Amino acid sequence: MCQLLGMNCNTPTDVTFSFTGFAQRGGNTDHHGDGWGIAFFEGGDCSESDRGLRHFVDHQSAFQSPVAELIRRYPIKSRNVVAHIRKATQGRVALENCHPFVRELWGRYWVFAHNGDLKDFNPRLHGSFRPVGTTDSERAFCWIMQELAKSHASVPSVDELTLTLRELATQISPHGTFNFLLSNGLALWAHASTSLYHVERRHPFTHATLSDEDLSVNFAEQAAPGDRVAVVVTAPLTTNEAWQAFAPGELRVFEGGVLRV
Amino acid sequence: MCQLLGMNCNTPTDVTFSFTGFAQRGGNTDHHGDGWGIAFFEGGDCSESDRGLRHFVDHQSAFQSPVAELIRRYPIKSRNVVAHIRKATQGRVALENCHPFVRELWGRYWVFAHNGDLKDFNPRLHGSFRPVGTTDSERAFCWIMQELAKSHASVPSVDELTLTLRELATQISPHGTFNFLLSNGLALWAHASTSLYHVERRHPFTHATLSDEDLSVNFAEQAAPGDRVAVVVTAPLTTNEAWQAFAPGELRVFEGGVLRV
Repeated sequence: MCQLLGMNCNTPTDVTFSFTGFAQRGGNTDHHGDGWGIAFFEGGDCSESDRGLRHFVDHQSAFQSPVAELIRRYPIKSRNVVAHIRKATQGRVALENCHPFVRELWGRYWVFAHNGDLKDFNPRLHGSFRPVGTTDSERAFCWIMQELAKSHASVPSVDELTLTLRELATQISPHGTFNFLLSNGLALWAHASTSLYHVERRHPFTHATLSDEDLSVNFAEQAAPGDRVAVVVTAPLTTNEAWQAFAPGELRVFEGGVLRV
Repeated sequence: MCQLLGMNCNTPTDVTFSFTGFAQRGGNTDHHGDGWGIAFFEGGDCSESDRGLRHFVDHQSAFQSPVAELIRRYPIKSRNVVAHIRKATQGRVALENCHPFVRELWGRYWVFAHNGDLKDFNPRLHGSFRPVGTTDSERAFCWIMQELAKSHASVPSVDELTLTLRELATQISPHGTFNFLLSNGLALWAHASTSLYHVERRHPFTHATLSDEDLSVNFAEQAAPGDRVAVVVTAPLTTNEAWQAFAPGELRVFEGGVLRV
């Protein structure tokens, strides 16, 4: 099974600590050596302008990759991050099959990563989004983008988009396991069919200790009182934080570092 | 003026030597400190399968960027590379305005970088390609992708694509300076309106010395007899190779490391 990591914050925050634990699962503490990827939205002073995107993919394991080493050491600050470590189930080990996938729609980049396996999901792709690789995941992403483009005329509000995504997820889910992360730089959507957890970090910040590596961080020293950070993962990354499990079929939306309800 | 660097080869080759000289122009030997970017197509054993893409952009100068340092040290091998160093003329210094730009069409990634300045180029973008940033360059790229999508039903042959691109370039060129590089992983197209040069490296390989840094390389030690490499740049990178200047308005196509005529 692949591993997902998402982060949504109200101020640009680096993902170094969480990525360090996460990257251990790519070929060291767990068996996911078939590539990995991460995307960071980046922009100006307000989240409205987070239109820029850094996208790193590598078919080497995240544990060994020189690009992953760069991410661990170079603190890229972002309000929306989507990362993925791959265990190939469909599609060969190749760069074009590494998540997250990126497409442009309505003048914004959209980033998608999937954990799971979809059987017999071969929708008609008659629109402008075609898979480059051979995974079920990219096929699902292209279909979602095609349906979003049909449902709205321009970038919809976070609430409207949530309604559309909930409906689309319901149509794909019967085909198998469909845990996914999606972001357009304005919010982070997370859908669980089997396993996803999230934690919210906010004032008063405390110590956190990584499950996968002998490393702890005191967020109280790093974060300002108003900072809010939400982290979503396949399995809890730390041993001493209150990770909240998703229910099967649940879609959660994070904006400004908090769960939107 | 921005700087362009393109490479097209018959076997996956690293761009480390050329990029080292090129990156010096981003904030050291020349004044292009407003960001940079590079894209590498990567795939399997034949160029037909070069569908994967690594895409690095940074709004820091290429001379100082930690990501550029990674590219200089980590020899990523590719048959088609497009790189760009930015001197902002239109659009602010921001990640979303860094070249090269990427879009997907017909299940292939397309990569575009531009050097120049287009005045009053505001075509109607009614198709599926919209700019994310605010540059004239991304606008031109989106229009080219839109027109390609209208002109062909699927990925055309290199020759057909050349005919279409030649016609499209003729329509954009009157708006200003339009030197560009475009690749879909199968070939590299280069269009000059003011300044582009190319060199072909092939057997018997010789020594080459960088203009921008005190570094030389003996390609005879690194390359096999059958290797063919074409490099396209805004201004010659080496002092002792036969760089061939483009004529104004000329579109050259490189495939398998040689100029296609």
